[in-house]
Amino acid sequence: MKGLPSLERAVVVLSRFPGVGPKSARRMVHHLLRRGHGETGELIEALEGVRDRIRGCACCHNLAEEDSGAGEILCWICEDPLRDRSRLCVVEEPSDLLAIEKAGLFKGMYHVLGGRLSPLDGVGPDALNLASLESRLAGEGFAELIVATNSTVEGEATAHFVARLAEPFVPCITRLAHGLPMGGELEYIDESTLYQAIVGRRNFKI
Amino acid sequence: MKGLPSLERAVVVLSRFPGVGPKSARRMVHHLLRRGHGETGELIEALEGVRDRIRGCACCHNLAEEDSGAGEILCWICEDPLRDRSRLCVVEEPSDLLAIEKAGLFKGMYHVLGGRLSPLDGVGPDALNLASLESRLAGEGFAELIVATNSTVEGEATAHFVARLAEPFVPCITRLAHGLPMGGELEYIDESTLYQAIVGRRNFKI
Repeated sequence: MKGLPSLERAVVVLSRFPGVGPKSARRMVHHLLRRGHGETGELIEALEGVRDRIRGCACCHNLAEEDSGAGEILCWICEDPLRDRSRLCVVEEPSDLLAIEKAGLFKGMYHVLGGRLSPLDGVGPDALNLASLESRLAGEGFAELIVATNSTVEGEATAHFVARLAEPFVPCITRLAHGLPMGGELEYIDESTLYQAIVGRRNFKI
Repeated sequence: MKGLPSLERAVVVLSRFPGVGPKSARRMVHHLLRRGHGETGELIEALEGVRDRIRGCACCHNLAEEDSGAGEILCWICEDPLRDRSRLCVVEEPSDLLAIEKAGLFKGMYHVLGGRLSPLDGVGPDALNLASLESRLAGEGFAELIVATNSTVEGEATAHFVARLAEPFVPCITRLAHGLPMGGELEYIDESTLYQAIVGRRNFKI
């Protein structure tokens, strides 16, 4: 719309969010304008916090927050002396780590790859945090490696790459189970998931 | 999540957008973190533009952008010498004005109320731009007033209030037509819209 370049600029930038189209971006800007300067200021401050204080963990590449502007920082998991340092879980993104943490069962350490292998998009092994993974595998003596990449074609390829990398160092390499999601109905589950659920069936404990 | 207060803060603030829940807000923050500092910086700048440069038009309360930090500004419609100054269209919000402009038919002037009467939410006549509307109606000699508030209970009440206010000054007071949306199928239209479409039926021009 002519006459409002700042508004149009904000619509363009907000439309880059996944799942946000130009229409919802416009609605977001109008929402901010209705709410007044205070709310926009709060949003700006929050985003500055994300930009300026969130860093990658120097050990596992999880997200970490720095209080000071000091150099290397560790995330809350690497800093926690109560975590089980004999198990390592490899994930693609920090959001995957947070999802596993929310499930609450795993109490070991993590390594965040920062993506998945995707040759078509130009993402080769060098683009991921694989060198630091190898030196951790060689140095920290893990008893188990859990490969928890996504269940996509690229995620599977990445899982195989990581498993081959870890083979000389870790006695036990596992991966997440495939099967029915909790609450899922057989009628609506895709056939490859159902195939995996049958392959991975377990003894019924009575 | 402990350890990442800046991230949590951004999730809370982003969740305030209409249609954005905590889950999508979290996805948005992770998207920014994946894209790196540049993209977050662009978003911050765009929001600062919205906060610092977008103002209310001194005449019609539409959104207007100021280049300098100068005092009163007019929007691109009030500044346009080619607009028809004999017709005034009253809308609730600037986004309604933009929607009507997009339709492309109306070439007159606007007045943005800045909301709708809603006694339950404590929005009375004093909270809307009604005093400036009255002085424009008294001074600018409009031939037609189009009441284009929303078709909600509050919007209808506001329309009646505006029409009564305008009666002494404007010879012709109109409102937008109700009826079938273009492309709408009768089967899926609610009954009150269909009722209005029948009431407002027009001669078929062959």
